[in-house]
Amino acid sequence: MQKVITLKDLCLVTKTAPMAADIHGGRAKCLQRLIRLDMPVPTTVALSFDAVRAIAGGQPVDTPQILRHFESAPLLSVRPSSMDPDWGGPGAMLNIGLNNAKHAELIDTIGEDAATRMYMRYIQAFAIEVARLDPEEFYLPDQPSADALRRMLLTYETEMDAEFPQDAGEQLAEVLRSMARSWEGTTARLLRQAKGAPPDAGLGLVVQNMAIPVGDGVSGSGMIQFVDGTTGTAQMKGRFVPQALHSETLREAAGAVFLTRDRRGPSLEDMAPEAFEKLIEFGALGRKRLREEMEIKFILNDGQLSILDAVRVQRSSRASVRIAVDLATSGVIPKEEAVMRVQPAALSELLHRQVDGSAARDIIVRGIPASPGAAGGVLVFSANEAQASASRGESCVLVRRETTPEDIRGMHAAAAVVTLRGGITSHAAVIGRGLGLPCIVGASDLDVDERKRVITAPDGRSFAAGDFVTVDGSTGQILAGAPPLLEAALDDAFQTLLSWADDVRDIGVRANADTPADAQTAHNFTAEGIGLCRTEHMFFDGDRVDLMREMIFAETPEGRAAVLERLLPLQQSDFAEIFQIMQGTPVCIRLFDPPLHEFLPVGKAGMRDLAELLDVPLAEVIARVDDLTEYNPMLGMRGVRLGITVPEIYDMQARAIFQAAVESAQNGVPFAPEIMIPLVSAMREVELVQSRIDAVAAAVRTETGVDFEYKLGVMVETPRAALRAQDIAEHAAFLSFGTNDLTQMTYGLSRDDAGRFMSDYVKLHVYEEDPFHTLDLDGVGELLKLGAERGRKGRPDVTLSICGEHGGDSNTIAFCRAQGFDYVSCSPFRVPVARLSAAQLAIRDRIGELNIKV
Amino acid sequence: MQKVITLKDLCLVTKTAPMAADIHGGRAKCLQRLIRLDMPVPTTVALSFDAVRAIAGGQPVDTPQILRHFESAPLLSVRPSSMDPDWGGPGAMLNIGLNNAKHAELIDTIGEDAATRMYMRYIQAFAIEVARLDPEEFYLPDQPSADALRRMLLTYETEMDAEFPQDAGEQLAEVLRSMARSWEGTTARLLRQAKGAPPDAGLGLVVQNMAIPVGDGVSGSGMIQFVDGTTGTAQMKGRFVPQALHSETLREAAGAVFLTRDRRGPSLEDMAPEAFEKLIEFGALGRKRLREEMEIKFILNDGQLSILDAVRVQRSSRASVRIAVDLATSGVIPKEEAVMRVQPAALSELLHRQVDGSAARDIIVRGIPASPGAAGGVLVFSANEAQASASRGESCVLVRRETTPEDIRGMHAAAAVVTLRGGITSHAAVIGRGLGLPCIVGASDLDVDERKRVITAPDGRSFAAGDFVTVDGSTGQILAGAPPLLEAALDDAFQTLLSWADDVRDIGVRANADTPADAQTAHNFTAEGIGLCRTEHMFFDGDRVDLMREMIFAETPEGRAAVLERLLPLQQSDFAEIFQIMQGTPVCIRLFDPPLHEFLPVGKAGMRDLAELLDVPLAEVIARVDDLTEYNPMLGMRGVRLGITVPEIYDMQARAIFQAAVESAQNGVPFAPEIMIPLVSAMREVELVQSRIDAVAAAVRTETGVDFEYKLGVMVETPRAALRAQDIAEHAAFLSFGTNDLTQMTYGLSRDDAGRFMSDYVKLHVYEEDPFHTLDLDGVGELLKLGAERGRKGRPDVTLSICGEHGGDSNTIAFCRAQGFDYVSCSPFRVPVARLSAAQLAIRDRIGELNIKV
Repeated sequence: MQKVITLKDLCLVTKTAPMAADIHGGRAKCLQRLIRLDMPVPTTVALSFDAVRAIAGGQPVDTPQILRHFESAPLLSVRPSSMDPDWGGPGAMLNIGLNNAKHAELIDTIGEDAATRMYMRYIQAFAIEVARLDPEEFYLPDQPSADALRRMLLTYETEMDAEFPQDAGEQLAEVLRSMARSWEGTTARLLRQAKGAPPDAGLGLVVQNMAIPVGDGVSGSGMIQFVDGTTGTAQMKGRFVPQALHSETLREAAGAVFLTRDRRGPSLEDMAPEAFEKLIEFGALGRKRLREEMEIKFILNDGQLSILDAVRVQRSSRASVRIAVDLATSGVIPKEEAVMRVQPAALSELLHRQVDGSAARDIIVRGIPASPGAAGGVLVFSANEAQASASRGESCVLVRRETTPEDIRGMHAAAAVVTLRGGITSHAAVIGRGLGLPCIVGASDLDVDERKRVITAPDGRSFAAGDFVTVDGSTGQILAGAPPLLEAALDDAFQTLLSWADDVRDIGVRANADTPADAQTAHNFTAEGIGLCRTEHMFFDGDRVDLMREMIFAETPEGRAAVLERLLPLQQSDFAEIFQIMQGTPVCIRLFDPPLHEFLPVGKAGMRDLAELLDVPLAEVIARVDDLTEYNPMLGMRGVRLGITVPEIYDMQARAIFQAAVESAQNGVPFAPEIMIPLVSAMREVELVQSRIDAVAAAVRTETGVDFEYKLGVMVETPRAALRAQDIAEHAAFLSFGTNDLTQMTYGLSRDDAGRFMSDYVKLHVYEEDPFHTLDLDGVGELLKLGAERGRKGRPDVTLSICGEHGGDSNTIAFCRAQGFDYVSCSPFRVPVARLSAAQLAIRDRIGELNIKV
Repeated sequence: MQKVITLKDLCLVTKTAPMAADIHGGRAKCLQRLIRLDMPVPTTVALSFDAVRAIAGGQPVDTPQILRHFESAPLLSVRPSSMDPDWGGPGAMLNIGLNNAKHAELIDTIGEDAATRMYMRYIQAFAIEVARLDPEEFYLPDQPSADALRRMLLTYETEMDAEFPQDAGEQLAEVLRSMARSWEGTTARLLRQAKGAPPDAGLGLVVQNMAIPVGDGVSGSGMIQFVDGTTGTAQMKGRFVPQALHSETLREAAGAVFLTRDRRGPSLEDMAPEAFEKLIEFGALGRKRLREEMEIKFILNDGQLSILDAVRVQRSSRASVRIAVDLATSGVIPKEEAVMRVQPAALSELLHRQVDGSAARDIIVRGIPASPGAAGGVLVFSANEAQASASRGESCVLVRRETTPEDIRGMHAAAAVVTLRGGITSHAAVIGRGLGLPCIVGASDLDVDERKRVITAPDGRSFAAGDFVTVDGSTGQILAGAPPLLEAALDDAFQTLLSWADDVRDIGVRANADTPADAQTAHNFTAEGIGLCRTEHMFFDGDRVDLMREMIFAETPEGRAAVLERLLPLQQSDFAEIFQIMQGTPVCIRLFDPPLHEFLPVGKAGMRDLAELLDVPLAEVIARVDDLTEYNPMLGMRGVRLGITVPEIYDMQARAIFQAAVESAQNGVPFAPEIMIPLVSAMREVELVQSRIDAVAAAVRTETGVDFEYKLGVMVETPRAALRAQDIAEHAAFLSFGTNDLTQMTYGLSRDDAGRFMSDYVKLHVYEEDPFHTLDLDGVGELLKLGAERGRKGRPDVTLSICGEHGGDSNTIAFCRAQGFDYVSCSPFRVPVARLSAAQLAIRDRIGELNIKV
């Protein structure tokens, strides 16, 4: 059954016509708004989504219904009007209604040359776009002529077996049908769905009376806006091309005049002062009433101004922040609306340097973008080389098969990191994001010869150590040479926007920070404390790893304690420095987590060195390494299991933390550290660790005569800890969900091994998303929910948080807010994004009350 | 405040006295029952738990209250009466009241020699047990004399600074105090708690008039029972020793006469025909009224019969089955009560050969008992040697560091298996239990030199290949030589008991069986089908592993399919054979589960062989092995993940299953196989596998023209599958919980690595039990509960079951029953135990209705 097209489906755009963006499309609705602002918009008829769908389905077009709104022999344009302009759509068709008679008429008004050029262009567009004829048959000669026009009309007639339609209604019907059908094409559908359009997205069409930009007096096409699309600062920008058909002004500047009076040449302001003034007036009006910076498209015909359209100014991420802040500052929109107008993802671009969008890219290879931002440097192939390079003041890019904790110092020294293996949560990726270091992982198409220190691209080109490359961690591209980079933009607008965000935000945002440098970044981004301070990195630095190895080879608890005694002051000073930086905001320290075998060398050479260092037989080293080897290290002897069976490590760490807290108190900053136990699966683990740590605290209080408070909590990262959260919370002041490991265990899926099939799985929609990238609300989320509910049963005021890689993600924050979590913790460089996301969620909940538009 | 001792706490045992086993202990209650049966029990006073506790706490003993029930100068015994006789307690004290005067009196009645021996024995016992004097000072001379008696009394006086108490009341008070206190001692407490006594278990005491087994006429001590304690068959057993003090008759047969008339010598039947007849009468009465086979202790004094006590006949596991069945068959107890009387654990002993309890044990080393039963053979150190040994018809014991799937054929060939590494759920343990093969794992104190083929015990002794050893998988001991073994006892009583169990059982019991041999065992034990048939073993057998390797190296889906095509007939015949054996009962086949790298060789030599076999460069083999290596294989590319990314394997398996089902149908046994998908974590995995398997089924139906049904289900072994059971069940006819992997993932704990700290954890009560051994009801059980609830929401008639190692455990069965599961599946050798456990649970729920005693 055919849809009955109603008045609403096919309506003259007036101030009062019943129109909506989700019925007629954004362009149609915007034109109505311009009409309401009394802007000189040519007569316009809007076709609704339903109408266009009916036409695509074969329903005859009721052209008389449309044409009755226009003069008798009109020239018309048809343009697409989907709900979101980003979703694309067919190109505009101009000059519909042009025929032999009109051509003759135009020769009188705009001259033969322009009229013939206009007619031939129209025939060309109609033949190619509407009649779908071979473009090669319809080329435009450099110099149009009556003869050329005749030949073109003949070609059309030969190809179509009918003469070029002379009736405006017939032309219009064909154009509408053609545009309606192109929207239904597979390519168009896929393209718009990739941009987020729903499967049933509709297309509206706008039929408008043409204003002719050629002719007597000041005639021409133009566009104007009042801010810079790159920076967002107030600045008039645009173009006016006299005597130019509109479509051309968008493509080329040839023939354009200045907008404002200029000594160097003619300007719109001089040529048409009244129209110019009107445009400025319309700009201000639009900004105020449409509550947005608009780009206005206009035509002058003999000095007469027509406004064809006005669209949101295209803008960079940086500009989006500045424009939103300026609109709020000047009172056009409330602050909350400004906060809503910036995409959290866009914010993350501002935190990092970017490859200039307009620069040419010489791509060596693509990998997985694991940590955003761009940086260049010379190729190095080991952590040592990276440190050497850095000490020479030379920027470098570290390429490794994969990174291990031993590469940390090399990563610190590098400007960017590339690994061949691993996924979005591999060691390199996690550390890279933590350091704000551009990072690409899983670049498996790259061939690396570590011995020769050469990489080979898929196209066969080789790059050797010392060659300069650029890593674009936002796109995953490794580029040859040094394309121009844009600096990070943490300007005043950025700060203002985030301070407004903080005003409405109702869930805490902390940072995961392991080192003083991380802590400094976290503090700079106004994190409300550290939610996860992993301490194992403190055991890898420099000579410390040798001490750890010595401890592993100690044969008695006393022997272990003696070695740990020497690590104590080093760790204490790490903590003291972090406490100093964080100035009294909370710091949650996770006790030692990794399995001991991570500290042992892997190859024969390393073992030989270690045997020498410890002065033990090589066989003993080999035996110990073999002894500590695990089938599934992820599920092995680590975390609290190590804490209970080798309690000297936690004793030392607790002492280091408390002594640092005392130091801090003595420096006038009383500090209450939070201590977190990893990999808990049973309440009794907490009880046992608690009693030992309480004893250490009592000892330090007695020894120093300084009183201090601290909180002991649990990292919930096994499903069992979530299920047993009630009894665990009876012994824990806080529960922090470690969603990385929790995801691994809930799925039974190692993040290090998932790469082998994850892309297949996402392609086949087995998993909608990589659960290590986007928190799996249906499964892992269920455990968070259960854990939170049960945790509160055990201790009504238990502090709840999340500290996995997911912590900075907007969906995750929404979920945590809904469950009443106290805070999320994420990489320092995700903190601003998280602050904004959290604020937007709070605002969204209060939309009615705040009376804002989003 | 002292407890007030009431009449109930200190009462004369009569037919009507208010007594109970949980107030006065089992012995006291039993004596009352004997009195009610009109047996000639000497006058008896029972002290309740409370009374004894008060005495131990220092309350003076009110001896007149006790003594008033006896004649004026009595001889008394005091014996312990705890609730369960197995809980131990102080030894009996006899002849209390014996003093100089009584001694003189006894000389008249039983002669000087016997009277003096009796008195000296009493003084000795009193000095050592009650006064706690040095035993060395109170030895008994071979020939007692008045002189020796005097010296002994003097020694007592010197040591105690007081003469040996002559007052019966004083003696009794001391004895009661001493026995009450010894119950409170730490050792006694630990011993009884190890046998299951609660921390507050009480001790009752029984004061009884002594019957004197020496003197004129037919006097003596004896005991008699009417069944054989080893076999349980009806047979009079016992002993009567004329003129012997009672305590001795239990220890030595010297001087005993026959019970029944015998040509070889004197007999009780001849000596005291009336008393003998009474004993037989009392035996029959006891059996009927006490509903149990009793061992009766008696004394004759001048032909006068006194019954001192009657206790449950001590019995072997085998006898316990036969006695219970016979009691029910003869109508003494209902069948359900017979079912309740056999411990499930005892049943498992009957399934296996055992080392004879009375044999000497020369223990080489102790390990973890992983699969019960005993077997001996010559030592071998590799699977090949084991097969060679078996082919010579020689029984052998396979010793390995640990076993891998490649050792399977060797394990089949061996009589028993020992590994140095691994725990209760290691490969060797699981396979051993499946095969019913005695197995000891984690024998880490054993030193093995695999090259020299020698094991060295902790005591330094060495045993070489070819030496004969015996493995006791029930105790974890490896024994030197060949101690005598008792055969398994699957006799008619065993079958009868289990058939009664099946009559009341209300949850199904299936077996986990991978091979035709397993299936045969399962069928013999009346399993109601196979709950888990793992198919990967089918890929390791013989040349099949080479085919698998060839498949792994195939580069295209077509290449893989071509290799799998050659595996198809082999696998099909495996299935056909299993279907044949199971005769139409359900068989649930789990599709291929392990990661592919398990099929690749580990060492260089193996890789070289493989390179030769496949005719590819060694480097390629090394690269492929490296490529497939995983960080955490448990959480890696296996199960359904492999099924989706390399679908040819599941296609082949489905075809083999369906073609075998068609074969079965053509042989007149229509067969509906159940196909189970492993390691599912998302519904869509099931959907994808389902559509491919449906397609294979359709193809086989068309090709063969035979219609068949099948069910597709899911093995729930990731926490996520349990959490998402609702949508998964929409695509699955059954959900079977694989608690091995589910436990690993819920705890974040690899069973292969847990051994490093599990014993510490259980010792510290971090985990109450090893969760791989005893199902963790609090955590993993929670997921089973959630999974079952949600599964039923998705499909109300979904079949629910458990198929992990825990399946045969009584607690697990109780839990599964409570959750309404349809069946449990366990090792074939656990099936009888599971049938009995399940029946006992069903009976326990109906105790009121069945009107039985348990």
